[in-house]
Amino acid sequence: MDPQYINPGKLKHRSDTVIFNGVAYVSGVVSADAGLSIHDQTRQALAQIDERLQAAGTDKSRLLSATIWMHDVNRDVAELNRAWNAWLVPGRQPARACVQATLQGGAQLEISVVAALP
Amino acid sequence: MDPQYINPGKLKHRSDTVIFNGVAYVSGVVSADAGLSIHDQTRQALAQIDERLQAAGTDKSRLLSATIWMHDVNRDVAELNRAWNAWLVPGRQPARACVQATLQGGAQLEISVVAALP
Amino acid sequence: MDPQYINPGKLKHRSDTVIFNGVAYVSGVVSADAGLSIHDQTRQALAQIDERLQAAGTDKSRLLSATIWMHDVNRDVAELNRAWNAWLVPGRQPARACVQATLQGGAQLEISVVAALP
Repeated sequence: MDPQYINPGKLKHRSDTVIFNGVAYVSGVVSADAGLSIHDQTRQALAQIDERLQAAGTDKSRLLSATIWMHDVNRDVAELNRAWNAWLVPGRQPARACVQATLQGGAQLEISVVAALP
Repeated sequence: MDPQYINPGKLKHRSDTVIFNGVAYVSGVVSADAGLSIHDQTRQALAQIDERLQAAGTDKSRLLSATIWMHDVNRDVAELNRAWNAWLVPGRQPARACVQATLQGGAQLEISVVAALP
Repeated sequence: MDPQYINPGKLKHRSDTVIFNGVAYVSGVVSADAGLSIHDQTRQALAQIDERLQAAGTDKSRLLSATIWMHDVNRDVAELNRAWNAWLVPGRQPARACVQATLQGGAQLEISVVAALP
């Protein structure tokens, strides 16, 4: 069985998502508009993740794990969590790690997920 | 097959562990007592991972990968490794990456693992 | 089915690679020579990843995901990408996240990958 690469040519350095053996590996997503609040940047990033999951044939009710990087985790994690918790399907929260990191282009947050296919 | 979510309601933003297709994804674990030495904080975090793995029906002899974040990796990695190496089952060391990151609440270290089920 | 551990004893704290259920989890690789340019350090790290993938029975045409940590992501990511993009098999780019982190021993970059087995 070969991995399936979704949008491998859109950017040279990564695919949007790679599927193998019933699992979708989604590339790190950053918010598109740094002028927004952390809450709204999180919502934007999660909307992009919804699109990626849909393109892979799955959705946020089948998340396995998430890694979140924040430019200032102690200042901003509460606002991120407000959007994150509202987005999650109750009872189907992924495993998660959330740490601080300086991000490319001054981004405030980056989210990467792994999800199961139906 | 549906993913299995362990303790999804304990915290709103994550499950303790998610199981899918024979693999357990464990949320990042931090030490519970920042007053302890790095060695003892590592032991505490690993004890929590033992509990998570047991709840998922597996154990540290089946680790696949680990990601470790440290507040000061160059100062503290030797002390972390002393506890980490003593904890591992010889011949069954996971793949690992260990980098520096500022963590939530002043934590000195966070450990996330992926393990195989029996 | 048991995980397969490749070179678990070379270093006490990790295996080079762990294989389970058709997936290879490769430990974080750092460049071996900090005196080289970022471009050449990236090439060195990727050559080590090639060796690890070969030892696991697979290759870079089957990458699933990659996590890259850089000492100075905004200064150096273009140079890293120049080597990374040349290394990748077109149409088979992995999912990727790339963030900044202070690394052990003054390393400028660390790359960890997950790959499918044939």
